Amino acid sequence: MKVKITVTPKKAVFDPQGKAVQNALEHMGYQGIEAVHVGRYIEIDMDGDRETLRPQVDEACHRFLSNPVIEDYSFEIE
Amino acid sequence: MKVKITVTPKKAVFDPQGKAVQNALEHMGYQGIEAVHVGRYIEIDMDGDRETLRPQVDEACHRFLSNPVIEDYSFEIE
Repeated sequence: MKVKITVTPKKAVFDPQGKAVQNALEHMGYQGIEAVHVGRYIEIDMDGDRETLRPQVDEACHRFLSNPVIEDYSFEIE
Repeated sequence: MKVKITVTPKKAVFDPQGKAVQNALEHMGYQGIEAVHVGRYIEIDMDGDRETLRPQVDEACHRFLSNPVIEDYSFEIE
């Protein structure tokens, strides 16, 4: 199955990379940009069924793939 | 509207970060992992409607947010 994980900085955490992208886009003439957040995207091809994978992936995200102090994660299994 | 962009290395491009994550996960005891790809996730809050945003976002992805030589991108507008 394909597991798609996104990890983003928590809203309360300063996101200099997002701010830099926002500034660059505005500088290039794109208008109406309110906010930009930059995070990581991780795609894992794994054997197993949805029910057994879900807790495994959740644990891996929490322990290893994100820093829960400053980042949020979400994932879907397809 | 919220624009969600994922940028991933093309399948033919060597992805050392993905390989490192795969090795680490296997080392931690997760089994049945076939492949891992690590990319970027960019979320943009923008004014505008879907029809005007789509070509703008596509252009921004192509020119600036990804490197089309070695990366693929996809996005959805919500």
